[in-house]
Formats: sequence, C-alpha cells, structure tokens
Amino acid sequence: MSLPMGPNRYGKAGIRLAVVERDGDAHTYTDLGVDIRLHGDFAAAHEEGDNAAVLPTDTMRGTCFALARDGIGSVTGYARRVAERLLEASAATTAAVVEVTRYPWARVLIDGVGHDHTFVPDAGGTPVVTVTATRGQGVTVVGGIRGARVAKTTGSAFSGFLRDEYTTLGETRDRIMATTIDAAWGVTSAEVDVDRLAADVPATVLAAFAGHDASESVQHTLHVMGNAVLDAHEEVTWIRFTLPNEHHILSDLSPYGLDNPGRVFLVADRPYGVIEGAVARPGVIPDVPW
Amino acid sequence: MSLPMGPNRYGKAGIRLAVVERDGDAHTYTDLGVDIRLHGDFAAAHEEGDNAAVLPTDTMRGTCFALARDGIGSVTGYARRVAERLLEASAATTAAVVEVTRYPWARVLIDGVGHDHTFVPDAGGTPVVTVTATRGQGVTVVGGIRGARVAKTTGSAFSGFLRDEYTTLGETRDRIMATTIDAAWGVTSAEVDVDRLAADVPATVLAAFAGHDASESVQHTLHVMGNAVLDAHEEVTWIRFTLPNEHHILSDLSPYGLDNPGRVFLVADRPYGVIEGAVARPGVIPDVPW
Amino acid sequence: MSLPMGPNRYGKAGIRLAVVERDGDAHTYTDLGVDIRLHGDFAAAHEEGDNAAVLPTDTMRGTCFALARDGIGSVTGYARRVAERLLEASAATTAAVVEVTRYPWARVLIDGVGHDHTFVPDAGGTPVVTVTATRGQGVTVVGGIRGARVAKTTGSAFSGFLRDEYTTLGETRDRIMATTIDAAWGVTSAEVDVDRLAADVPATVLAAFAGHDASESVQHTLHVMGNAVLDAHEEVTWIRFTLPNEHHILSDLSPYGLDNPGRVFLVADRPYGVIEGAVARPGVIPDVPW
Amino acid sequence: MSLPMGPNRYGKAGIRLAVVERDGDAHTYTDLGVDIRLHGDFAAAHEEGDNAAVLPTDTMRGTCFALARDGIGSVTGYARRVAERLLEASAATTAAVVEVTRYPWARVLIDGVGHDHTFVPDAGGTPVVTVTATRGQGVTVVGGIRGARVAKTTGSAFSGFLRDEYTTLGETRDRIMATTIDAAWGVTSAEVDVDRLAADVPATVLAAFAGHDASESVQHTLHVMGNAVLDAHEEVTWIRFTLPNEHHILSDLSPYGLDNPGRVFLVADRPYGVIEGAVARPGVIPDVPW
Repeated sequence: MSLPMGPNRYGKAGIRLAVVERDGDAHTYTDLGVDIRLHGDFAAAHEEGDNAAVLPTDTMRGTCFALARDGIGSVTGYARRVAERLLEASAATTAAVVEVTRYPWARVLIDGVGHDHTFVPDAGGTPVVTVTATRGQGVTVVGGIRGARVAKTTGSAFSGFLRDEYTTLGETRDRIMATTIDAAWGVTSAEVDVDRLAADVPATVLAAFAGHDASESVQHTLHVMGNAVLDAHEEVTWIRFTLPNEHHILSDLSPYGLDNPGRVFLVADRPYGVIEGAVARPGVIPDVPW
Repeated sequence: MSLPMGPNRYGKAGIRLAVVERDGDAHTYTDLGVDIRLHGDFAAAHEEGDNAAVLPTDTMRGTCFALARDGIGSVTGYARRVAERLLEASAATTAAVVEVTRYPWARVLIDGVGHDHTFVPDAGGTPVVTVTATRGQGVTVVGGIRGARVAKTTGSAFSGFLRDEYTTLGETRDRIMATTIDAAWGVTSAEVDVDRLAADVPATVLAAFAGHDASESVQHTLHVMGNAVLDAHEEVTWIRFTLPNEHHILSDLSPYGLDNPGRVFLVADRPYGVIEGAVARPGVIPDVPW
Repeated sequence: MSLPMGPNRYGKAGIRLAVVERDGDAHTYTDLGVDIRLHGDFAAAHEEGDNAAVLPTDTMRGTCFALARDGIGSVTGYARRVAERLLEASAATTAAVVEVTRYPWARVLIDGVGHDHTFVPDAGGTPVVTVTATRGQGVTVVGGIRGARVAKTTGSAFSGFLRDEYTTLGETRDRIMATTIDAAWGVTSAEVDVDRLAADVPATVLAAFAGHDASESVQHTLHVMGNAVLDAHEEVTWIRFTLPNEHHILSDLSPYGLDNPGRVFLVADRPYGVIEGAVARPGVIPDVPW
Repeated sequence: MSLPMGPNRYGKAGIRLAVVERDGDAHTYTDLGVDIRLHGDFAAAHEEGDNAAVLPTDTMRGTCFALARDGIGSVTGYARRVAERLLEASAATTAAVVEVTRYPWARVLIDGVGHDHTFVPDAGGTPVVTVTATRGQGVTVVGGIRGARVAKTTGSAFSGFLRDEYTTLGETRDRIMATTIDAAWGVTSAEVDVDRLAADVPATVLAAFAGHDASESVQHTLHVMGNAVLDAHEEVTWIRFTLPNEHHILSDLSPYGLDNPGRVFLVADRPYGVIEGAVARPGVIPDVPW
C-alpha cells in the first residue's frame, strides 16, 4: 500500500539576525527572529523522493540574510519582501507564511540621555507579525504581541460561578489578577501600518486592563480589552487573546496566629487557568485556528 | 460600542498528578499531566460579567484528582471520564477537550530484575491522548507522542533540490538525519485501545525510520513512516507528523590540515528545518488544524 | 563500612511570594523568590536517621510567608530577618544563607502617569541579595544582579590575540559586543543600604559598558566596569562578573553578490564565550567560590 | 584609580559535537557537549587591553573539533587531550578545566535487535566528566552524573523533626520520595577508568536508593548512597550529591467525600527541598566548592 501525501508544509524555524543601521552617529539596532512555512504541491518529494520542487530550508535562511542587506525599514515590510520572494522562487508554493518576531531593544539611558550605540532590552512583550503571500489571493497580515505580563492588585473579583460536587473554590470580591498577554489581530489590508499597531494595540490593551476595575473574571476583562482595541484602532478587524490566569493565592497565615488582610500571596506556577477568546467586527471571522 | 464575544474557550492547564496502585507488593506508578478546555456558550461571562454558567477552572483540577481516586486504569479511559464528567457538570459546554500526557516511568532494574516500588523515567517520547466529548456528537479520541528523538548516521541524502540565487547548500548523498518526532493520529472509534497504540505506533514509526535507508529527504521519510503506521494499524485513520530537521553539519577541519571522512559533526540548535505533514486513508481528513 | 557524613547543607528553593502594601490609593507590589540553605551539624540525621535537629524545609517556607505579614520594607532587611530567625529556630545551624531575588515591576503608564494598582515587569536585570547569618561571626551581605543584557554596535575590537594551529578567527577592530551581565558584590558592612546599590551599581556598570569605546575584549571592559563600580560606590569592596560573550557574527553575503558593511549579523546562541573575573579593593578577597 | 585585576578565568561554553565511527557495519555515535575554562595570568588583557596571551575561545572550539578527528575513544581521555593541548597552547594558563557531557544514546531496538546505525536517547541521567590539567601539579579527574530521576512509592518516612511556631508540616511514616540526582565524585588518580564509573556509580546509587526502605529523610538516604558507592568502588575517594526533594503531596479528597489511602498525589514543582552533602574516605576533602 502507498497512500498519497496529505496536507503538508515545510520551512525554517529559529532564524536569528540583527541589523545595524549606521546612518550618522546614532545607530539603530533591529533584532529579529524569523519562522517560515511554505504550503503547496510537494507530493513528489514525499512520495517519490524527487526534490526538484523543494527549495532548501537553508535557502530560506539565506534569503532572510540577503534581503536584510539594505536595512529592515518596516518589520512588516521586511516580512512581506521575504514572503513574496519565496513565492517567486518556488513555483510549487501556493502560500508562503513568514512570521517575524522583533525582540525589543531601547537605547541605554546615561544621565537620562539615550546612548548612540548601546542598547538594552526594552520592557513589555515581544511584537510578532505574520505575513502570508499567496499565489493569486493576495497578501494578508496578522499583527501580534507575545509575553506581555501585567498584574493588578485590586479591581478584580470572581464570584457567582457554577458549583458542583467538586467545587471547593471560595468566592472573592477582591483578588490579584495577573496574566501574560498573547494576542493576535487582523487588519483591513496588507497596506496598514502594522509596525505602528505593534506599539499602539498593546498600549490600548494595557490601559483597558488597568481601567477595568469592575472585573468579574478574566473573561470579562478579555471582552473589555477586545472592545477597546476595536474602538481605538479602525484598521483592526479582530483580535484574539490567550490569557493564562496566573494565580496569586492569599496565604493562610492563621496557623502562625496571623491575619492576612490581602497582603501576602503565594505566586503559583501551575496549574493555571487559560482563557482564550476573540472579539471581531460584524461579519468578520478571525482567520487563525485554535 | 460593545461588540459581542467571538469564538472562545477556557480551561485549566498544567494539572499534575501521580497515582500509586498498591495491589500486592509490586506497585504501579502513573504520572500524568492534564490540560482541559471547555467550548460552549460563555457569552454572559464575557459580556456581562455573569459567571453563573462558568465552572471554575479550579473545579476542573478537583475533578481530575477526584476521578483518579479509584485508579487510572486506561489513560484514555481516564481522559474520557474527565471529559464526560465536565460536559455533564457544565450545561453551557458543547465540547470538553481533555488532553492527558503520561510521563513514562519504568521499574528500576536491580541485577536485571524490576524493583517493586522504585521507578526511573523511561526512554522514548511522551504519550499524549486527547479526548473530546461533545453534546450530541459523540466522543473522539486522538492519540499521540511527543519528543521522540531519533538519529541515523547513514542512509539519508539530500540532493537534486531547487536552486536559486540564494542557494549555497551543497548536495549530499550521505548525511546524519536526526529529528524529534511529534505525532498525532486519529482512530476509527472512541472504543479503540488507544493506550496500546501509544506504544505500538511509535515502535512502527521508529522501525520505519531505521529501515528507510534510501531516504532522499525528511519529507520522503515522513511519507514512509506515515504509510508504515497505516499499514500496520488498521484502527488508525490518519497520522500527522511534525519533524524538526536537527542539522548535524560536517565540520570543516581543512584549516587544521585534517580531512573529515563523515566523522565529526557540529550539532546545531538553530535555525532548524521543520517538516510537517499527514498521511490519511482515502476520504479521511485529519481533524487537527495547523 | 559506614563513613561519617562530610560537608553538607540543606534548605528550600523556589519559594515565591508577592506582597501588596495598600497604604493609600497607590499600592506597592513586591514580587520575591527565596532560596535558603542551612549549614551546621546535621550528622545524626544523615547517619542515624534522627531528625530531632532538622527544621523541615516546609518550615523555612512558612517562615518566609509569616515574616512578610508586616510588609517587606527593605528586601535586604527581609532577607536578614529570615536568616536570623532560622538561626534562632535551629540550634544545630551555624550559618543560615538566604538569597532573595526581587522580580522588578513598574507601574504601568497610562498617558504618561503611573497607575495606582496595575504593574508591568520592569526592564533591566533582576536584583538578588544574599544574606548569611552566622552563629558568632556576624552577618554578611552580598548584593547582585542577574540577566542584565546589553549590546553595543561599535567601540569594540578583538585583535592581537595568541594564535596556534587551531586558530582561524579573524581579527576585527569593530564588532558588536553583547552580553548578559551577572554580577555579585561585597559591601563594607551588613548595615549598608544594599537595596539602593541594587539599582545604583547596575547603572554604573551600564554607563561604563557604554562609555568604554576603546574596548579590546570583553576582559578589558570587565576590568573597566569593575573599577567604575569601586570608584563610584565606596561601600562596595569587590565585584565579580560573569559575562557570556554573545557572539554576533557578520553574515557572509558574498555568495549572493552582496557586500556587508557591518550591517547584517547572525545572532548565535552557542557556543559562547564566558569571561569571569573580579576586581577588589587592596587586601580584599571576594568571598564567593567559582 | 585603577585597581588590578582579581581572580579570573575564561573559556568557551556550549560546544556541541557528534562523532560517528564507521568501522564496520555497526556505527558508533558519540554526542558531546564541552565547556572549557582557562585559569592563569591574563592581567594584561584585562588591565591594558593587550591580547597577546589570550588564546581565543574560538580556538578552544576548533581544538575540540580537531582533536575529535581520530575518534573519541574514552570520553575522559578526550577531555584530557583537550585540556593538555590547551595548557600547551597557552603559556599564560596555569590550569585548563575541560568538562565534557556525554548525551547518552542507545541503538534503537527492532524486534529486539539493536540497529546498526539508528539511535535513540537512552534513559537515565547524563554523564559528565571534568578534567583539570595544571602546569606542574598534574591532572585531576572528577566524574559525575546529572539529571538521574528516581522515585519510590514506599519505604520513606519523615517524622520526629524539630518544630517551631512556623511548623505546620505533618509527620509521615510512608510517603513518595522522588529526586533528580546530580552527583560528582573524585578518584584516586587520573588513570582510573572514569568512563566505566560513569555507568557503574549511578547503578550503585540507584540500587542503594531502591534498597533503603528504612529511609527517615532524604539526608538519611544520601548518606546510605554515598557509603554504598565508596564500598563498591575502591577508586572513588569522595562523592557529593545534590538532591532536590521533589514533593509529592497526598491530595486531600475529603471535600469530595472521598478518602485517599496513599493513592492520589499532587506533583509539585516548587518550592522544593534541596539536600546536599558529601561522603569521603578518611582524610579526603572533596575538592569542589558549593
């Protein structure tokens, strides 16, 4: 028996490059990770060991370095150049998916002034952009952020929930709510300034998180954050969040003869809750699978 | 503006429990991780902060511990009991997805004899089973393995591939091929003995990997492994692999005045290739998204 | 044969607690990790299974939570209270070593204003303080920082080095120098404000790193940074650094017909250089082993 | 002010190489990590930026690859060849420390027979050997194992311990004891067959762990394991262990109306106990710092 090849894709992961632009005294430093997948007709490679249609993954790596030669400019634009080049180079490819992670750096401050050529990692999460270039169906861009941690010490409750025989959790009207935000968002067209949104959308999300002091659950705050983004950014058509509920458990100090008026918390790793959901404009379906 | 809640799910991740069965002198030791997601109608929680339909994720944790009280028996059966219980407990849930990872342990051998109550981690990858219990559409089971590393020192080539202006990779008719196999597979029904397949499918995969000495690429071997599984296991309807190409690069010793006849290799972490694909019986579509 | 117990110590690692102080609208949020080791006479526990002198590691955990009840105040002071309490509680202990890691958080900025009760992780490395309370020999404090990444895009050379038959590295007068600084420093007495130094010493180190544009090696910059700290902070008596040399390798674009004027770099994980060294005031010996 | 350079060392970490020996049909596959540090007089490099005495860390990497050309043979022998070569190449070096980690692989079994050229990771911990070659003071070798996990489901107690006002832990005469053994051991001379001990010492340790069913604590078992090694292996002069106490906490099922007769345990990550200690022959002092 030999069954034919089913759905497949291939590519290169873990490409890492830094680009320095030296126009004038103040350098710019761009630190990127790239992940590539090609979808298309690669049946002969799988079924017959015929590699004629297979662009090596090493070539994908080389393409990333070569196309960085003249500078990155917009990260989204760079991701698009790589995706369109791979589509052009590989006739068997129907869709080239290029995900670029930008590790954020900031100028080190010396007496409050940014240094010309010394950099430190910036706070906040890590922006990610995914560009899909297709043969005949245009280009789509999805923006995103990963690892944006945030915690609030009040303004969060969890009560009135469903109980069954395995429910022992107590209700609370005031707890710590902490999470590490991963989010992805769609835009109206590939021409939108997705690099700018990589900064602006997380700022909107954080402001909504901070401002939502009537939070009844992580789910409740997720919906508020999603709405805030779609309110503030007309180019965004949907946003999806993955929010771990990073539990901070009020420590029981009574065995030591002490009370604990919302002061000392055990920071737990696991198990942890996971809350995932999308908010979209009418008629829009987020085009990312679970 | 308040847009309604879009697609969503929630659950508990990172639940870890060990179960000891003490029937007689020889104990059994079962070490599990559990990840749960509920899909359903949780709009009120998101939009109104009304938690009446929300079973706490802490209850999911408690359910896992309580249902382990009488022993695990089949891991697949345990996953199913948890999934069905959560579906029953939460009227708003339309699908309860329970993924159980079984960390493999073996009896420590003392003078070649397995010890009654002392255990060490077993070699090989980590079995995973995912049970989805739905309201009205039955139960589906997907088997799997994660992290099954394997390497071969000959019998693997990569040549005759597509070249463009960014291609510098040399052709080779003999290389090291190494990967860490992640695989998932569907079965004909939820009644199949998926625990047995968790051992048998990886054995078939490894034998196919070892036996495929005419490998022209990771893709080529993927197809062979997929066919081997569907040939050997009639209950399996599709199998999908994710195979990193863990590059071993022949070290250039010529600067030191030495040749290198396929002997010394640099073990690279990244970038690495990623080859993903499924083989399925006629008419079957693997029901897992990328 | 039964040989007596040799050198030993024990304790609790991975304690994690967060403390909220709610004096007024603006909360403070302190997020700590604690690691404890007790040294002393625990021979009976090892040799005879007699636990009468063994304070459980669970009690060390409880002590950390109980002593946080009234707020942390100075992190160094908290570490000292825990160390001194453990010395008091355990008569067999001759030295209690308490290492406290402070995970840095900052108020989230909303329109440029710090929020009262919402926090995000701060940039920069993670401060660590180690307090050793001894029976009869007083208290010593060692400050430190971990994971302070920094990169500079010019002002760093590496040339004129020793060559042998296995040396192929080219000389360079201009490269990227990047590292992730781990440092520990001794102070003149346990009464020094080590919490303040946890901010001030890294600032001095970063300024020295940025300012040293005649760097001939990581070693060279290490010595400059060490001197800068001892110059600026009279309470510091020695400082020791561990500096990975995080190689950024100029990408060879010539196969693609492109030059690379210091612009595109491969960011390598490994192998990586490791440069370690201490600078101390005359007569002072850093009291930490390699 | 310019203070002189204090204690320092430097080297290369994270070197990874695989060596294939193809003598006959049955290949051998050796997968190694190497970490190197040179100690010596590198003051000029630090203080003056003079690299004339500095062998580049890149050369250390090259040395590792070149010296593997003719096969590894004994891992200890290979580590020694690298250390002695570096001492020879670098006149400023007084001690070259080379630590080699051997990632264990085994032949994949096909129908019970080991395959000629296909390998899978072996179970058990990872052997490590550290060779120090000095100028004028000979060569020392320290063997070791890392990450050898083991668990027993009975035969372990913890009771009769010291209590204070922060002690809430209950006593137990029957618990799960689990740990991940890291150990290092000294030998009588550099000529001892340390590769053989890398297999034999862990086997002795595991047998002692399994056999010690009167365990009153991790400390108690540590001492038994140390004595077992020194009893069984006359070439070993001391052994030191680091043993995390990986807590398995009996789950309280009473809220669900269930008992829990030693059956269901929560597997905790942290906090965790750490038990460290050495057993040595009379007059021997383990020559590794904490």
